Amino acid sequence: MELYQAMSTLRAVRRLKPDPIPQAVLARVLTAATWAPTGGNHQSWRIIAVNDRHLKQKMADLYKPHWRSYIPGYEAHLQNMPIESANSARKALESGTYLANHMHEAPIICVFCFNFEHITVTDAQLDRTSVVGGGSIYPAVQNLLLAARKEGLGCVLTTLLCLEEAKIKALLNIPADWHTAAFVPLGYPVLGGHGPISRKPVEKMVFQNRFGESFAD
Amino acid sequence: MELYQAMSTLRAVRRLKPDPIPQAVLARVLTAATWAPTGGNHQSWRIIAVNDRHLKQKMADLYKPHWRSYIPGYEAHLQNMPIESANSARKALESGTYLANHMHEAPIICVFCFNFEHITVTDAQLDRTSVVGGGSIYPAVQNLLLAARKEGLGCVLTTLLCLEEAKIKALLNIPADWHTAAFVPLGYPVLGGHGPISRKPVEKMVFQNRFGESFAD
Repeated sequence: MELYQAMSTLRAVRRLKPDPIPQAVLARVLTAATWAPTGGNHQSWRIIAVNDRHLKQKMADLYKPHWRSYIPGYEAHLQNMPIESANSARKALESGTYLANHMHEAPIICVFCFNFEHITVTDAQLDRTSVVGGGSIYPAVQNLLLAARKEGLGCVLTTLLCLEEAKIKALLNIPADWHTAAFVPLGYPVLGGHGPISRKPVEKMVFQNRFGESFAD
Repeated sequence: MELYQAMSTLRAVRRLKPDPIPQAVLARVLTAATWAPTGGNHQSWRIIAVNDRHLKQKMADLYKPHWRSYIPGYEAHLQNMPIESANSARKALESGTYLANHMHEAPIICVFCFNFEHITVTDAQLDRTSVVGGGSIYPAVQNLLLAARKEGLGCVLTTLLCLEEAKIKALLNIPADWHTAAFVPLGYPVLGGHGPISRKPVEKMVFQNRFGESFAD
């Protein structure tokens, strides 16, 4: 699959069949994640590919209440959206609720862990929440998502379970100095799977030389 | 270009020619970034594509002393590495120094900014540095890097300038509630550009069900 085709049709696919993923397909998707760049090439992240029924059920049980608490804020936000975006966002909400109710059915949940030992967090001392550690983790997550798209696997980047990091660490034997960054359920799509995406036009996302200055000029 | 080919040959390319990038090529690379997923599809990031000579010089001037302070720690780390990795890491160090000395020559520096207003940072309350905000930013950075690779443009994800966020914000008129996450110089490669990469094997990066348990079993 051509790169731009993969990128421009990578959707959040939240309705997943329980059908198993062939080991060779899964291996290709996981290998694609390992190709991502990391600071100093340290690759201070790992994936735990969870397929154990009991562990997936425990994770789903931890996820569901957080999804439920997320809904009211999201619904409030829908009220302020233009009708077309609101319709699309409402569908995302419904598929999110489906995922919350069926997460344990996904054949695999990829849990991305990371360790700060070799990550240089250049925004750690700023007077705001840090994000830079993610620069050595989420490129690998994106590679995994793109590979899943190529292989016809549904997938979505979720982070709600970071709210339960201590319980997830206990459940999956994650060492004290490793942490959680992303949870990606993988499986064949129930419905149409990947396809067209809705994004702001590049003219709204890119400026030239200074914030707010039009790139097109 | 096929997806896996792009991913598996995306290198950190730090020696960049000053030759301009055709506007159509640049537009494709920037558009690829906009396709990336973000939490709630809010796309709370922007790119400032800096090509103004004066602004690039100011950014290079801010970058260079931080690169210099980074070198001794990196060199100490080289002492503890196996010889093959150390050779490769030393080359990366040399190309990093080249970048520090020539950053202003890159035809474009892409500055990724973001805003927390619509980013749900699920690890903000944990007793560790947060990374989850990066989950709505670095997938776009990775898309940009992969697109640059496809287009034959050298590129590298850098974050050292986050150490100078206040000065960068003043320089590029970035509003108070927007912050910096990544700085990606783009340009045609001086040397071979993209090509083979060196990564840990998937067996070391992926576990099954619990941290430390072999995926291959």
